[in-house]
Amino acid sequence: MLQESSVDSSGSRFAPLVVLELASDTKEEAIAWLLSRIRDWQQNGGAELLVEQLGPGIGVEEKENPNMFLVGASMQRLLCGAEDLGLFKECTDGSMRAFTFASKHNFKDFKGDGDGFLSMAECQYVIKHELDTLRAKEETNVPGYSHAKLYPGKSIIRRLLSKGILIQMFPLHENEELKRLSFSWYKKVKVSLQPLDDIRHYYGEGQALYFGFLEYFTFALVPMALIGVPYYLFDWEDYDKYVVFAVFNLIWCTVILELWKRRSASLAYYWGTLCRKKAFEEPRPGFHGVLGHNPVTGRAEPIYPTSKRHLRVYLVSLPFVLLCLYLSLYIMMIYFQMEGWALSIYDENPTFWTHILLFIPSIIYAVVIEAMNLIYRYAAEFLTEWENHRLESSYQNHLVLKVLVFNFFNCFASLFYIAFVMQDMELLRQSLATLLITSQILNQFMEAFLPYWLQRRRNKKMIRKIQKRRLYEEKELPLVEQVRLEADMSTYLGTFDDYLELFLLFGYVSLFSCVFPLAAVLVVLNNITEVYSDAFKMCRVFKRPFADPAANIGVWQLAFEAMSVIAVVTNCALIGMSPQVRSYFPESETQLILCTVAAEHVLLGFKFILTFLIQDVPKHIQDKLARLEFESLEALKKKVSTSTL
Amino acid sequence: MLQESSVDSSGSRFAPLVVLELASDTKEEAIAWLLSRIRDWQQNGGAELLVEQLGPGIGVEEKENPNMFLVGASMQRLLCGAEDLGLFKECTDGSMRAFTFASKHNFKDFKGDGDGFLSMAECQYVIKHELDTLRAKEETNVPGYSHAKLYPGKSIIRRLLSKGILIQMFPLHENEELKRLSFSWYKKVKVSLQPLDDIRHYYGEGQALYFGFLEYFTFALVPMALIGVPYYLFDWEDYDKYVVFAVFNLIWCTVILELWKRRSASLAYYWGTLCRKKAFEEPRPGFHGVLGHNPVTGRAEPIYPTSKRHLRVYLVSLPFVLLCLYLSLYIMMIYFQMEGWALSIYDENPTFWTHILLFIPSIIYAVVIEAMNLIYRYAAEFLTEWENHRLESSYQNHLVLKVLVFNFFNCFASLFYIAFVMQDMELLRQSLATLLITSQILNQFMEAFLPYWLQRRRNKKMIRKIQKRRLYEEKELPLVEQVRLEADMSTYLGTFDDYLELFLLFGYVSLFSCVFPLAAVLVVLNNITEVYSDAFKMCRVFKRPFADPAANIGVWQLAFEAMSVIAVVTNCALIGMSPQVRSYFPESETQLILCTVAAEHVLLGFKFILTFLIQDVPKHIQDKLARLEFESLEALKKKVSTSTL
Repeated sequence: MLQESSVDSSGSRFAPLVVLELASDTKEEAIAWLLSRIRDWQQNGGAELLVEQLGPGIGVEEKENPNMFLVGASMQRLLCGAEDLGLFKECTDGSMRAFTFASKHNFKDFKGDGDGFLSMAECQYVIKHELDTLRAKEETNVPGYSHAKLYPGKSIIRRLLSKGILIQMFPLHENEELKRLSFSWYKKVKVSLQPLDDIRHYYGEGQALYFGFLEYFTFALVPMALIGVPYYLFDWEDYDKYVVFAVFNLIWCTVILELWKRRSASLAYYWGTLCRKKAFEEPRPGFHGVLGHNPVTGRAEPIYPTSKRHLRVYLVSLPFVLLCLYLSLYIMMIYFQMEGWALSIYDENPTFWTHILLFIPSIIYAVVIEAMNLIYRYAAEFLTEWENHRLESSYQNHLVLKVLVFNFFNCFASLFYIAFVMQDMELLRQSLATLLITSQILNQFMEAFLPYWLQRRRNKKMIRKIQKRRLYEEKELPLVEQVRLEADMSTYLGTFDDYLELFLLFGYVSLFSCVFPLAAVLVVLNNITEVYSDAFKMCRVFKRPFADPAANIGVWQLAFEAMSVIAVVTNCALIGMSPQVRSYFPESETQLILCTVAAEHVLLGFKFILTFLIQDVPKHIQDKLARLEFESLEALKKKVSTSTL
Repeated sequence: MLQESSVDSSGSRFAPLVVLELASDTKEEAIAWLLSRIRDWQQNGGAELLVEQLGPGIGVEEKENPNMFLVGASMQRLLCGAEDLGLFKECTDGSMRAFTFASKHNFKDFKGDGDGFLSMAECQYVIKHELDTLRAKEETNVPGYSHAKLYPGKSIIRRLLSKGILIQMFPLHENEELKRLSFSWYKKVKVSLQPLDDIRHYYGEGQALYFGFLEYFTFALVPMALIGVPYYLFDWEDYDKYVVFAVFNLIWCTVILELWKRRSASLAYYWGTLCRKKAFEEPRPGFHGVLGHNPVTGRAEPIYPTSKRHLRVYLVSLPFVLLCLYLSLYIMMIYFQMEGWALSIYDENPTFWTHILLFIPSIIYAVVIEAMNLIYRYAAEFLTEWENHRLESSYQNHLVLKVLVFNFFNCFASLFYIAFVMQDMELLRQSLATLLITSQILNQFMEAFLPYWLQRRRNKKMIRKIQKRRLYEEKELPLVEQVRLEADMSTYLGTFDDYLELFLLFGYVSLFSCVFPLAAVLVVLNNITEVYSDAFKMCRVFKRPFADPAANIGVWQLAFEAMSVIAVVTNCALIGMSPQVRSYFPESETQLILCTVAAEHVLLGFKFILTFLIQDVPKHIQDKLARLEFESLEALKKKVSTSTL
């Protein structure tokens, strides 16, 4: 809980939840208009929220932005918002149901006037939703800004953001909660699992699912790492004895992905997101179009023709991706030239320094790959934004697809080339090790330590400033300073990069790890530090992100499954190429290939059947979902019978 | 509509819908008990239906069964039954909604007291459902039959059937409707499509979807047949020039299956079955177990542990299927021995008669295959029944899986052996042609002409009998005679065999037709006669079947898709084996195989992507479904808010 409450315009105090930071030179009339729209009744198209300007800090200086606003809401408004969003909560009978204000007393944790029923993350999510869906009515432009055009149905917040009038909107941290969470998460010496429920409570379901997946993935890798160590210790040079390891790989990666689906469904059910999202997905705030009527809900919302979007996807985005792939291929060829050049120098003059030189091309290539991935990422984001997807999920899918294809190609093309064209297992092992280690080091650095270091510098400045004035004796910062401090923190950009990293690691492990058995060990170690560094950056480095009520890891599940299919193919090919297997077919290479292909088809078929046999949702949760479905159909019948249509 | 109405016990007349035929020696007390249970109020656990004994026929003879009962219901009872079943009907606003009695006036075709709102097939389905779910209360056995044990929750009808007390239960035909339908369906010279809506109206959605699929499949085959004819005419001996044809095959079979999903979804939406079934699937009448509570609906129903069922499936059914596959393989080997023996006789003494002898083994093998399929079918049905599946859909899935695997193996194993082990394209073509033609002739004979001939003999006897007495001047048979006539007709056993036949034809066309381009032409011709013979047997040969509110062709969609994946593999292999392609790789067979495998993987990947890109349900129907889902969630919120939980 925050230490201080503000006083709203009507005189009652409210707990600030979300901060709006407008540009310091925003015109008064625009501010007055925005505040009135936020405070206005819902019937009049307002958001009916409480909002107040943040007072001047203790260290008042000229450069401080005066236009920071705290947004909150009455408990009743928050509860109604939760109903609008269709939040699922646990009922007294143990089932999960959509919350409604009228039936509030049927819910388990509802006491008194509902204080503490919604977590702060949920309250902030409600407020974000209400602000995002605050749409223009008859206004043709933002008052005072004739270039900031508005039309009926346009999201006001989005327009203000795109015109630079609104700088940012972020939810506030809760210091007490955060301390408790960070202690149980990463500060104590760990023998326990991560506190997923607490993470979900503080950061929302999307974050919690990411950390759940990270944990699951790490545990799933342990057997592989355990098998990998003796392989590494006793058969280091016999890298042709990897058949057993490759077979293990195949079964492993199929089974863990199927079991994750079940675990994910269980988590999502008890977090109330499993059955929530489908029907309630509002258009994403960035979506623009002509105001029309949504054919599903009947509500007014912008309409954008699918054909136009398809044109943009197929005529602009697709050629761009292909061009980037070509560029990546080109750079890979330069890398092989460098590799050959380094090798020729070493052959001419084999000293210690020229031996070191052998690793230089791989390291440079790894750095270049990371840089290209980074640049491409921005381009992909821009393009996907421009494609103007209606739903956030659709936006995410297109973005993930673009980035995945490129990153996969960029990271693994050279390994495929070495493995299957050059067929040089020694070089493959060396390349794999270099790529893996370099990218891990770069990632951990870019992800956690760099932002932490930047943040620390800013924090120190702020704390020094306050200490200089020394007006307060309390250890805690006052609200005003706390808000300004958080406003300066970096913005967390979602779990995308974290998943992408896991995806590439999964690729390194499942595709080629049989030639470098230590890969799994490295990835396990990386994942353990990743848990700590991710937890640390969530708690200390970044602004609190808005909760994201995800029911599963979404398109990433598909991405990981696609990777596991590719892993079956590469592992079969590696097995077929091993001298061990070749020795069974001394006279006929044709027979060897045919047998390998047959084995691969059988394995793919088996994988497919396994996917069917292992049910995605555990039986007891299936029953609960079916019960909800059944009740909702019964209720619909009742509704049709009482309404006049 | 039937020509005559009966008078029920309370004196009011009712239209008979369903006939129950009890054994002629059934004890009076059992009959009285059954009738009272059927007539009893629903609150008392009865079915609340009207039931009356069928009067003696005009041609009363000693051997006529007196224990035939006509079952009907009041319009209000039927409408309530339709509500219980969750039947979807078109509303006045054009959307499809679950029918409820209270909101009856919101539905489009509801006029007056609802006469004609439900089709006769729907009324019969309602009555079947009510009879099937008529369950024992405290009775420990059927009165008068101490061996016919009952326990609370046991379906009475099912127990009577299994003990031979109830001989059969069937819905009555409507002669006027049937005449109209059969005229528009198969009697007029056709340039039009089949009257699918009328078929659905008379026979229900399951039948109509089968005929819809048959029609769709036939049209889909036309381009293939058109390409096949010139291939056959001009390149008969150049069977190596089939690469283009094989490539066409690949694309064709992927696209048509995807498009069928869309067509099927459209049909099912407008027939009201697309969103209906999932939540309302009652346990199948044959399911037995200890009475417990369904975790979804909370209603009392038998419970049978899944682990026991799994034991039966994996320890009994699976070994049995494997044994049958082994047997089938053994018989195939005998066939190849016969083939070799015939060839050796022909080589020794090449006359016209020994040339004919060459075809004999194939024909014998084809007949043996059909016979084995038939026998296996009964075994599979027995086993699947014994596995005691709770849902009809689960029963169907297990039955289809068992039969499919065996039939696929039985029909195609020899072709695979010839194509890929013997690599004898000439023999493959000959075998394919013989198998296809023999099985078509056998099927048409077994399916339509044999039952028709048997039926005709029975009908003639009946008509002669009536004409002998000549009591009535009307052309139409009186109700009593009509009922007895229908009771003697064969029972239609569902669309299973029809789909299976289409599945095998699809296999012949998609797997190997490139070596026998006329296959598609033969299949098109077969399908056209199949429409007529199936329509004919539905209208004239069989008892009317109960409607089956199917939303899609179910597990057959999956079966056809699996076949199309196998077709990609076989076609790629056939292309790789063609002399045309081989000539591109004169020096290296390895390279040829690698290229073929690479092409196959690319095609499989492309097929997979295509499956994603083509949406299963057309956009406008997706919107309507989402709207229903949205409304039902809104209604649930309302319900939660008004109930006290």
